[in-house]
Amino acid sequence: MVRERDDIVALDSSIILHPAVWDASGHASGFSDPLVDCRFCKRRYRADQLDEAQCGQKPSKHPGETEQCDLTEPRQFNLMFSTRIGPLEETGQDAYLRPETAQGIFVNFKNVAQIARRKPPFGIAQIGKAFRNEITPGNFIFRTLEFEQMEMEYFVPPPAAEEWFRYWVDQRVAWHRRYGIRESHLRVREHEPEELSHYSSATSDIEYLFPIGWSELEGIAHRGDYDLTAHTNASGTKLEWVDGDERYTPEVVEPALGVNRSMLAFMVDAYDEEVVADRERTVLRLHPALAPVKVAVLPLIPRNEEMVGKARALYEELRRVLVAEYDDSGQIGRRYRRQDEIGTPYALTVDEQTLEDDTVTIRDRDSLAQERIGIAGARALVLDRLVADWTTPKTG
Amino acid sequence: MVRERDDIVALDSSIILHPAVWDASGHASGFSDPLVDCRFCKRRYRADQLDEAQCGQKPSKHPGETEQCDLTEPRQFNLMFSTRIGPLEETGQDAYLRPETAQGIFVNFKNVAQIARRKPPFGIAQIGKAFRNEITPGNFIFRTLEFEQMEMEYFVPPPAAEEWFRYWVDQRVAWHRRYGIRESHLRVREHEPEELSHYSSATSDIEYLFPIGWSELEGIAHRGDYDLTAHTNASGTKLEWVDGDERYTPEVVEPALGVNRSMLAFMVDAYDEEVVADRERTVLRLHPALAPVKVAVLPLIPRNEEMVGKARALYEELRRVLVAEYDDSGQIGRRYRRQDEIGTPYALTVDEQTLEDDTVTIRDRDSLAQERIGIAGARALVLDRLVADWTTPKTG
Repeated sequence: MVRERDDIVALDSSIILHPAVWDASGHASGFSDPLVDCRFCKRRYRADQLDEAQCGQKPSKHPGETEQCDLTEPRQFNLMFSTRIGPLEETGQDAYLRPETAQGIFVNFKNVAQIARRKPPFGIAQIGKAFRNEITPGNFIFRTLEFEQMEMEYFVPPPAAEEWFRYWVDQRVAWHRRYGIRESHLRVREHEPEELSHYSSATSDIEYLFPIGWSELEGIAHRGDYDLTAHTNASGTKLEWVDGDERYTPEVVEPALGVNRSMLAFMVDAYDEEVVADRERTVLRLHPALAPVKVAVLPLIPRNEEMVGKARALYEELRRVLVAEYDDSGQIGRRYRRQDEIGTPYALTVDEQTLEDDTVTIRDRDSLAQERIGIAGARALVLDRLVADWTTPKTG
Repeated sequence: MVRERDDIVALDSSIILHPAVWDASGHASGFSDPLVDCRFCKRRYRADQLDEAQCGQKPSKHPGETEQCDLTEPRQFNLMFSTRIGPLEETGQDAYLRPETAQGIFVNFKNVAQIARRKPPFGIAQIGKAFRNEITPGNFIFRTLEFEQMEMEYFVPPPAAEEWFRYWVDQRVAWHRRYGIRESHLRVREHEPEELSHYSSATSDIEYLFPIGWSELEGIAHRGDYDLTAHTNASGTKLEWVDGDERYTPEVVEPALGVNRSMLAFMVDAYDEEVVADRERTVLRLHPALAPVKVAVLPLIPRNEEMVGKARALYEELRRVLVAEYDDSGQIGRRYRRQDEIGTPYALTVDEQTLEDDTVTIRDRDSLAQERIGIAGARALVLDRLVADWTTPKTG
């Protein structure tokens, strides 16, 4: 999103923000869940998720379904974590941990546009922690108090907003496909009018078919000029685009992605078990750009000092530019399997022939093909292959 | 610290932690600043920094120096930001934002040692946000509520702790030197016994000579077995090293560095103005590993479409593996200066000759030397030079 494009710049804004930002954005009043309490069993439930909850007395029933259930009317509870700046309760100032990274982008819109010398259409992207005081955390990594988010706000001239919204839905689906999610596991779901957030005139979710069912990975929202106008009104600073006689408030298209969920989706989709030469192997067919280790270096006979010396030297050279791993423990077959399981795309093996002619074998994780290459050109070759792999979409 | 060494692994632990962690670590009771209030002018001061503060009534005096000053006795105020988990005040649970990343490492010691299959001596490192409710924030980037920290906890057999402490002080000085800090701007200051934190038996600070004077970049602390013992006692889970008959609580050496301060030090130290061919130039002589942009691609004549085409193609190839910038606005001299000012180590220029023989010039930021190289091998050559630069300490 940032490195491969000319029209998007990166930002790292702060986590703790002044309440005025959240008043302006609508989060102070609107970012809440409805809760009900049961006066009988003293349990608390999300009013909109009673169908998924178990009654505290009779787990086979939903709350409200037994005679004893005595539920209160729903009340709204804000999902932002609050804290106080300043050492004393009485003189401190309220502040909130960001529940999304987007508002840090909107309040910095003018600074970034000026400093990075950009004009619409252009985007500001950031990745970082966000925090939500979830009433019912859990469900594995799907609802956590603290999570990693990637968001990009794309500022466009208002007449082009609709077209850019469709562009970004397509682009983001292509992004998930490029990094390996197979087509049958991916779908786009348009929000119904009654589902839309207060700031959005259109939103599409990208959903993935997890083993537990379809779940959201990313939302692409048409936010219009809601945010820039809201912060302009609250701050008195005009967050608009001015160039000579041209003057307007840009509209915004926002792809917002949960990193933890997406990483899980990539792992689930890449996981494979197969039988090769009568033996089972587990392999994580991760796109090379996502693989945590890019290349492994293995001396065939770990007690052979010359082999180990050559392997270590090659490893030292590789790890200056790539995340590499060196492994000399156990049989070579088991070492290959270990790398297959964590998705390492390439393994270089130093063997007897290396000591004669300074060549090594390079083994491909997916095809299992092995070929001999010169040690001297190994780094350049591995880099070239990785770059070629990155460029070619891996689609299943 | 992580990629170039075999004995250190990386971690990303959570920001919000349970109060029991901070009770065990001593932060709940001990991580505080002493404050005094002036009953007359209602201002608040750090009791240990009255010499640096201005009296609210007479700014030429320090608090307590005028007749009207009426200071309270010092009171201790904890520097941790607190929040509450759960939607309601009455049923919520206190939690704290981490004021350092280290405790997230200690409570994960056993998990990491097992999963990463490490035995002492080994280290766990992490980089991330930390938060401190500073009474007097400000002083540029030196005292901020939210900051980026790098910490590494190195676990060693107790008899070797003293030696490892000295090893890490030397290593960390060498690290700052390697990335460009000149020797005369760096010093090591050993803490006096009365300065030591509650957990430390020895601490050395690495200080840098900023334009405003000497200030701390990093502290290397001998923490002994304080932390692992404290969390063992509080949790009942033995955080110790066990291997057959061998069983002990490792001692810990911790280098802890403020990323924002260090980045400022690297920038200040790299900043240079010089006269070249009767013209002034500003150049940021950043170590290539720290330079935000590694290589620039410039078409000599931006209205020449063929030149632009070749330059764009080269740029697209480079930026798949390196942070690269493409610039076609303004005279070539000004474009070079722009890259000099942000510290870009290399600039590749596409000119008339490129159209004839597919060579480009490569310009070195520091020496200003230019030479012709083939476009086909440009990426490999730039990578090779960067790696060579990374390996060679840049010392002034």
